[in-house]
Amino acid sequence: MLEKVAWMNMLFDFYGVLLTERQKDFMDLYYCQNLSLGEIAGEFNVTRQAVYDTLKRAEQVLSQYEEKLGLVTKSTAERNKLATAAAMLEEYETVKSDGRVQQARKIIEEVLEM
Amino acid sequence: MLEKVAWMNMLFDFYGVLLTERQKDFMDLYYCQNLSLGEIAGEFNVTRQAVYDTLKRAEQVLSQYEEKLGLVTKSTAERNKLATAAAMLEEYETVKSDGRVQQARKIIEEVLEM
Repeated sequence: MLEKVAWMNMLFDFYGVLLTERQKDFMDLYYCQNLSLGEIAGEFNVTRQAVYDTLKRAEQVLSQYEEKLGLVTKSTAERNKLATAAAMLEEYETVKSDGRVQQARKIIEEVLEM
Repeated sequence: MLEKVAWMNMLFDFYGVLLTERQKDFMDLYYCQNLSLGEIAGEFNVTRQAVYDTLKRAEQVLSQYEEKLGLVTKSTAERNKLATAAAMLEEYETVKSDGRVQQARKIIEEVLEM
């Protein structure tokens, strides 16, 4: 379950802008702010089932975009590689300090934060 | 015009999978293989106007995805940064050879090729 939450958070992060306003609201409350279905239903004055259906549909939409575009998978792979490169340079800097190496590492870290 | 062609190629590269089959075919022939509207029309046995309309619609769809997701812009910025980092490390390697620095640069170059 935790894994699904983390995955949905990532999909929402990448493709959330492509959802409807209501889908965005419910996804945010459920996955980012950890509200229960009942709490969301109460807040929006709809049934628990309606919240469930909207979330299921939103999850489907996000998953379909990832199936086609694969951005989360690709981005994760890239970030892992860059983190490895940054760690290597950081390790190097402990034995030999050099402005260029340090600057290169900082650039990589900047990209990782983007 | 050349700039538009390059931009459309990038958008098509990122979001092309989200187009219809016909839109994909026409975009590919027009923007990647440089066929004229008339040549595409002849090949698909449709009017030149139909080709034009399909291309316009496809361009719109791609532009809307970029407006929302901004992946081409973001990816270009990231790649520019990483290219700078890789160049810095390469320059450093000309004065001091080190396995870790070299490996880090190779990883960055790998990511740039992804």
